[in-house]
Amino acid sequence: MSQVMDDKAFQDAYPYSLAHCYGCGRMNPDGLQIKTHWDGDETVTRFRPWPQHTAIPGFVYGGLLASLIDCHGTGTAAAAMARAQNRALDSDPPLRFVTASLKVDYLQPTPAGVELEIRGRAREVKGRKVIVDAEVRVGDAVTARGEVIAVEMPATFVR
Amino acid sequence: MSQVMDDKAFQDAYPYSLAHCYGCGRMNPDGLQIKTHWDGDETVTRFRPWPQHTAIPGFVYGGLLASLIDCHGTGTAAAAMARAQNRALDSDPPLRFVTASLKVDYLQPTPAGVELEIRGRAREVKGRKVIVDAEVRVGDAVTARGEVIAVEMPATFVR
Repeated sequence: MSQVMDDKAFQDAYPYSLAHCYGCGRMNPDGLQIKTHWDGDETVTRFRPWPQHTAIPGFVYGGLLASLIDCHGTGTAAAAMARAQNRALDSDPPLRFVTASLKVDYLQPTPAGVELEIRGRAREVKGRKVIVDAEVRVGDAVTARGEVIAVEMPATFVR
Repeated sequence: MSQVMDDKAFQDAYPYSLAHCYGCGRMNPDGLQIKTHWDGDETVTRFRPWPQHTAIPGFVYGGLLASLIDCHGTGTAAAAMARAQNRALDSDPPLRFVTASLKVDYLQPTPAGVELEIRGRAREVKGRKVIVDAEVRVGDAVTARGEVIAVEMPATFVR
């Protein structure tokens, strides 16, 4: 059992068998491979959309933003549960969450060609459920707001 | 001005300048290029996830389902508005919607390796706003349920 270092992303602590997710799995070579870290009580993911992630030319596809919020949310849920249990995210038994519900409000068009910052916060950690609030930011502008209700996978799934 | 034929997808009626969306744009060679049609009062999209669209091995990535529901929703919104105005979807002025809000409830894991059916219905068509309910189905099973609040783009955007 090792400590999660500050420079290790949440997703790098996922068990191998659950690291194939298109959005956040380090074992998915064609996926987005997002990486999320703590920043105080908030969590941060930075991602530069691919050229094909177009909504209308010049703006980022909303389905990508939903995907980023989704995986940022499940990652934040796992990390927040580890903190609540006062243990490292890569300690046993593994912690991995799935999305029960995802909500995204698109506040304004998200410009293409720049790095996005997704910031999240676990609003509630209770039983096997974590509710995460997230924002997509470009500089100081918040372009989308999301809520992820994440539920811990059964241990039988994780192993 | 031509009639929209029954065999022409909603997305094939989008103006060229708005046909680059990653989810539904026929001009985006790297995108999902979904195609949606009427089936009575419902709308239908069929899509086979790509091999990389994994959540955990054997199941489909939830962010993809959100993307499919999103673009199915904006397509359904445009088609429902055209019907409400008693005109063809490819008539002038063009109709194109953006997503104001997207909600997805994941009811059960969606199996990989099979074609998905997304079915939608415009619950409300009012002013410049359309609310669409959608379901993701695998055979008889509903694996996810979504709601899209879609808003008509300003005409200045569309031209």
